[in-house]
Amino acid sequence: MSQLLRVQNFGVSRDGFAAGEGQSLETPFGHADPRDLLGWAFTTASWVGRTEPGGTRGIDDHLTRDFAHGIGAEIMGRHKFGPQRGPWTDLDWEGWWGDEPPFRTPVFVMTHHPRPSITKGATTFHFVDGSPAAVLEQAREAAGGLDVRLGGGATVVRSFLDAGLVDTLHVAVVDLDLGSGVRLWDSPDDLLDRYERDVVPSRTPGVTHHLFWR
Amino acid sequence: MSQLLRVQNFGVSRDGFAAGEGQSLETPFGHADPRDLLGWAFTTASWVGRTEPGGTRGIDDHLTRDFAHGIGAEIMGRHKFGPQRGPWTDLDWEGWWGDEPPFRTPVFVMTHHPRPSITKGATTFHFVDGSPAAVLEQAREAAGGLDVRLGGGATVVRSFLDAGLVDTLHVAVVDLDLGSGVRLWDSPDDLLDRYERDVVPSRTPGVTHHLFWR
Repeated sequence: MSQLLRVQNFGVSRDGFAAGEGQSLETPFGHADPRDLLGWAFTTASWVGRTEPGGTRGIDDHLTRDFAHGIGAEIMGRHKFGPQRGPWTDLDWEGWWGDEPPFRTPVFVMTHHPRPSITKGATTFHFVDGSPAAVLEQAREAAGGLDVRLGGGATVVRSFLDAGLVDTLHVAVVDLDLGSGVRLWDSPDDLLDRYERDVVPSRTPGVTHHLFWR
Repeated sequence: MSQLLRVQNFGVSRDGFAAGEGQSLETPFGHADPRDLLGWAFTTASWVGRTEPGGTRGIDDHLTRDFAHGIGAEIMGRHKFGPQRGPWTDLDWEGWWGDEPPFRTPVFVMTHHPRPSITKGATTFHFVDGSPAAVLEQAREAAGGLDVRLGGGATVVRSFLDAGLVDTLHVAVVDLDLGSGVRLWDSPDDLLDRYERDVVPSRTPGVTHHLFWR
């Protein structure tokens, strides 16, 4: 079995945005509300951020419970790691996730401004400057034979799609328009020339799961 | 997180049968064709019985890839283990699965005719005579904190449902009538007094996934 590059539990608006404009420390998704884009996931028993018992165990849960299953490394963009831009002025920033980030594998943060690696709990963040193909090669090596999760944001997912490197893609399309922000695509149909797709409704009204593979 | 008892990838006909009549060495599902009941699963990339590369990676695959995820033991009925009835006359029978059964955990085979345990590859079959609750306790202990899969057949699933022991249940309902055989239920709606449910279509025409939890 080859090592797949997987996008999972990725929320986008009907008009194709995975985040709004104006990301800041207080608004990681800019003017978008993460409860709108990812609320379907928050209701599930297996959501990685769940702190209380309970949650659904239906179709949405089958998707969130796959988060870490068979994953040995993650690749993310710098804007998923933090709101800073340009050269690092403050190395105290170690991500949004506190002392025990949910990744629990090596994580490769793509940035033109590398900095020393950081270990937080079971997660080590490496900061790498390179092409999608080169970073994927590093992540695959670190994954020890397991799959690699492509964690976003949309700009990073887009660059890996354009390079033909994404094997499977789960995007939850939410029935709201953001108008502007960080765009994944014009339409979920954009990928149908290169991918097969299943479309299934979420339990959460207005949310539809698009599952792509090739 | 508590240890769940999970039924997974369980195929039944529209009229509620998980197997036909007349199980034999040549016909493990009696007069039912396993390709009818489980064909949706055979098409997926993660189907445990897949020997060739390829396969789909959409919604059906999210269900089959969950087969071993977080599972530490299986409970099955004797008729899943083999076609024999009554006292064992031939201990050479060691299951349908050859030298490397797909379970790769302890498996508890419920029978009124216990026999010595068998290890085949990474799977050890234990033969136990007891109530569903008692067998579940054994399986939970063997599962090392992980969930327990309730592997069927329908009679065994039914007995655990009646005892209120099943936590999650994935049944693929196939659009054909078997008329007779081993029955799981009269209708998928029978469980709605005790379970929540999602219903999603398979990629395979005529197959509908019913996902129950409580």
